[in-house]
Amino acid sequence: MSTQKSNKSWKTKLHEIIYEADTPSGKLFDIVLLIVIIASIILVMLESVEWIDKKYHDFLNISEWVITILFSIEYIARIITVKKPLKYITSFYGIIDLLSTIPKYISILFAGTHALVALRALRLLRIFRILKLARYLGASNTLVQALKSSRAKIAVFLFAVIILSVILGTIMYLIEGEEHGFDNIPKSVYWCIVTLTTVGYGDIAPQTPLGQFIASIVMILGYGIIAVPTGIVSAEYTMQHKSDKDADDDKTVHLNSQSCSNCLNEKHQDGADFCLKCGNELHHD
Amino acid sequence: MSTQKSNKSWKTKLHEIIYEADTPSGKLFDIVLLIVIIASIILVMLESVEWIDKKYHDFLNISEWVITILFSIEYIARIITVKKPLKYITSFYGIIDLLSTIPKYISILFAGTHALVALRALRLLRIFRILKLARYLGASNTLVQALKSSRAKIAVFLFAVIILSVILGTIMYLIEGEEHGFDNIPKSVYWCIVTLTTVGYGDIAPQTPLGQFIASIVMILGYGIIAVPTGIVSAEYTMQHKSDKDADDDKTVHLNSQSCSNCLNEKHQDGADFCLKCGNELHHD
Amino acid sequence: MSTQKSNKSWKTKLHEIIYEADTPSGKLFDIVLLIVIIASIILVMLESVEWIDKKYHDFLNISEWVITILFSIEYIARIITVKKPLKYITSFYGIIDLLSTIPKYISILFAGTHALVALRALRLLRIFRILKLARYLGASNTLVQALKSSRAKIAVFLFAVIILSVILGTIMYLIEGEEHGFDNIPKSVYWCIVTLTTVGYGDIAPQTPLGQFIASIVMILGYGIIAVPTGIVSAEYTMQHKSDKDADDDKTVHLNSQSCSNCLNEKHQDGADFCLKCGNELHHD
Amino acid sequence: MSTQKSNKSWKTKLHEIIYEADTPSGKLFDIVLLIVIIASIILVMLESVEWIDKKYHDFLNISEWVITILFSIEYIARIITVKKPLKYITSFYGIIDLLSTIPKYISILFAGTHALVALRALRLLRIFRILKLARYLGASNTLVQALKSSRAKIAVFLFAVIILSVILGTIMYLIEGEEHGFDNIPKSVYWCIVTLTTVGYGDIAPQTPLGQFIASIVMILGYGIIAVPTGIVSAEYTMQHKSDKDADDDKTVHLNSQSCSNCLNEKHQDGADFCLKCGNELHHD
Repeated sequence: MSTQKSNKSWKTKLHEIIYEADTPSGKLFDIVLLIVIIASIILVMLESVEWIDKKYHDFLNISEWVITILFSIEYIARIITVKKPLKYITSFYGIIDLLSTIPKYISILFAGTHALVALRALRLLRIFRILKLARYLGASNTLVQALKSSRAKIAVFLFAVIILSVILGTIMYLIEGEEHGFDNIPKSVYWCIVTLTTVGYGDIAPQTPLGQFIASIVMILGYGIIAVPTGIVSAEYTMQHKSDKDADDDKTVHLNSQSCSNCLNEKHQDGADFCLKCGNELHHD
Repeated sequence: MSTQKSNKSWKTKLHEIIYEADTPSGKLFDIVLLIVIIASIILVMLESVEWIDKKYHDFLNISEWVITILFSIEYIARIITVKKPLKYITSFYGIIDLLSTIPKYISILFAGTHALVALRALRLLRIFRILKLARYLGASNTLVQALKSSRAKIAVFLFAVIILSVILGTIMYLIEGEEHGFDNIPKSVYWCIVTLTTVGYGDIAPQTPLGQFIASIVMILGYGIIAVPTGIVSAEYTMQHKSDKDADDDKTVHLNSQSCSNCLNEKHQDGADFCLKCGNELHHD
Repeated sequence: MSTQKSNKSWKTKLHEIIYEADTPSGKLFDIVLLIVIIASIILVMLESVEWIDKKYHDFLNISEWVITILFSIEYIARIITVKKPLKYITSFYGIIDLLSTIPKYISILFAGTHALVALRALRLLRIFRILKLARYLGASNTLVQALKSSRAKIAVFLFAVIILSVILGTIMYLIEGEEHGFDNIPKSVYWCIVTLTTVGYGDIAPQTPLGQFIASIVMILGYGIIAVPTGIVSAEYTMQHKSDKDADDDKTVHLNSQSCSNCLNEKHQDGADFCLKCGNELHHD
Repeated sequence: MSTQKSNKSWKTKLHEIIYEADTPSGKLFDIVLLIVIIASIILVMLESVEWIDKKYHDFLNISEWVITILFSIEYIARIITVKKPLKYITSFYGIIDLLSTIPKYISILFAGTHALVALRALRLLRIFRILKLARYLGASNTLVQALKSSRAKIAVFLFAVIILSVILGTIMYLIEGEEHGFDNIPKSVYWCIVTLTTVGYGDIAPQTPLGQFIASIVMILGYGIIAVPTGIVSAEYTMQHKSDKDADDDKTVHLNSQSCSNCLNEKHQDGADFCLKCGNELHHD
């Protein structure tokens, strides 16, 4: 029974290191993980550059193995320390963790030269690890709130842009035609989106005077249109900002990054003893 | 007389399905129509892609006939159920409905190979059906109001942009000339609009040092100018938003999508017994 | 003496027609002038298109003569009816009126084929007539005020953009060099302005990995920078708008377009009997 | 002792001329320095243009010597008049002053033809002199404050843009591949930044229908995203502006450009007798 208890306390300690960022060892774990993730993404990028891949092939290969093993350890540790491992495994970050770990193992199983292209694609999955960095963006709640509250209006607006693009694209397809690069309606709609968003690649450009005249109208429209989402976000953000300042005066409490070992819920108030989502007791060190 | 009554009630029921969205069957009708419209537009787009048109010609042809027949049934049903059919036929959506239905029928009458190009153009008319989707944008009245109240100022602003483009375009025509792509003043003005709106295709670009210097000034001008419509919409939207919130407190009532069978006016208050435009009695189910 | 009086009243009447827009004949004069100016600018534009100039040479030539004669009549009438002709002649619009009238007369004096290029340039001067249309923009005072009050800040901002462009342009010249289109520092600065303003022609584009990395930083900088002038104008406009609304409640009077025959000052209050600038009596019809 | 005193007063006078802008001679010094700096930058630019360098080589060479000598005199004068010369020499502007002065002297030491490229690079260092002009931007504190207070949010936002670019860039690399210019992931990420920021060079552009479809989504995303930093700066600026106006009522004092001869701190209140940073007595003329 004593063994089981010491075992449990060992698990609890590991849980604190992995899932909480308030203890020194927890902070260290987060920083190391951050560096390994960024390193793995840079590695994937460098590998895609042909001359670097040829010159430093061995170094890249070894580095990849090191990172794969580190990710494997992290993945196993996360499963062991969580009360409900299945919930972690099937969660969004759980799936990303698995997918970004396995590619190198699979490369041994199918080590034929003919499977190289598919392997490369698998390796690229590691890029999604970057999404884990999104957790560090949590501080900017005002920004996310402003985007959320204006989401519906931006959606309506983008829908209007698409309707406009389809109609104007079809008209341009009729005017310019295949000989000037407007091969079909989807390509014309693509051109119209490129123009309305003021990107303007120039791979397709109107060449008839009438086409250039209509393109000018599309551009000036885009000029007026670009003002709308900016105005919306600007207004929403100002309001969010104001109510935030009002709320700051008396209603705010500090949230720490302590995570519940049962349901993985984060952001508990300082001094909370039980998880606010599942009622599981929180362990303070 | 009984027959006439049952006939009338049949018409009334159909009217409810087509013109109102509050009953389950009315909602279903709207969703089906939405899908058919989007399908017809995707069809028109795919048909314009040469290799798709060749490979799946039969499938596209049959699909087009199905959609044409569905549109025909809708068009006839709308005429039958409305009290004043002529008003519907001559209305904006009535004309669009007719134009987007007939192209396939005309293609039988003029089935010669020499009329292919004209037929293609006719088929493209169906794209305007997408405008019917605009009805679903009705929710965003704040947005439309903000645009409407700043319409005059945006017009003045765009007028200033055009004056600027004409003068700068003429100057660039004199500096760069025909050998660098500035063939004539209209084309130079087109270049100037492309630059001022920050689209920048690059199909025409200044090549003399003086031309590049003036182009730089045009771009920095455009940089300062782009701020103006955004500022206008942003300010108008903030105000609209505020007065909306004030109005929300006590003056709002719920509008349903019930449509008058006499004058086609929509947006009646919940519990309204007569049309607010023409005084015609509204039928509740 | 009677003759002189009738002469004076004739002059006064003409003055009212030309300089005031409140009488029916004054309005008609303004509209006709507006149409002639736009026609003259379209003419200049069409003439620059080679195939139009060749095909419709005689029509364009006659039209130009008609417009030149109309402009001449207007110019002489303006000089006769104003009390201080010299002030009109040396004023901004007076010089533009003269310069846009004389090109066709000069073309007779130097009718040799060798002077064709210079003549073309002279004809283009008529384009500046478009500036006279700026008078019709007078209604949007809020807009102009917002721009004026934020002028100093936009200037400071653009100065910062130029400093940034010079430094980044020089760095890119060192990295990319002549072989990739960055021929010299002025051209590199031009590229930097093209990129920072998000125009992006693509006539010059970085090709080395390091150059593309720095270009990415320039673009993301431009992304953050574009927010600044928009924010300034938006804030200034909102304030202008508010104080305008406050002022509207009790302080506004209607200004008519009556112009003083002595000092050409416009915008007098309704019912004003003397010019507010020079004290000259205003004639009511 | 008298000599030392006169010597000290001579130093004090020179200090006033160089570091303060309130006396007539101090203003003149600032204006002359401004002109010399701009002249030196234009010189560096012109020198990089091959045909100008060839044609006017002697004139450019002499001008460079004149400017180098002027900069040398300024640098020595600054060291002499400051109480703590080492602090000036190791300060940011001190290093820039030295680096922008020495290139021409070094060109004599290594006057071989083989060192030409390195010399050119050294000469370019003078471009950083432009940063000294930044001092003249000091007036726009509101702008700088608005940028500072929204710096954290803009950083978070740009981080999100980079995450998005890495993921979308990798996807595009898989779809388009090397044959369409997406050679490797870093280049694809570069393309994604070019597109998201609406620059759109067109040197790399998607050519497969699927690639163009995803590019359209990237562009529309960029369209929605561009609104965010603008909204932030706009909101922050409005608030800054408001609190500035409140502060203007009673809390502001005039700051002059008098600079402390001990610690180089600028911006003292009118009438201040001692430096607010180091307590050194300030000399009034």
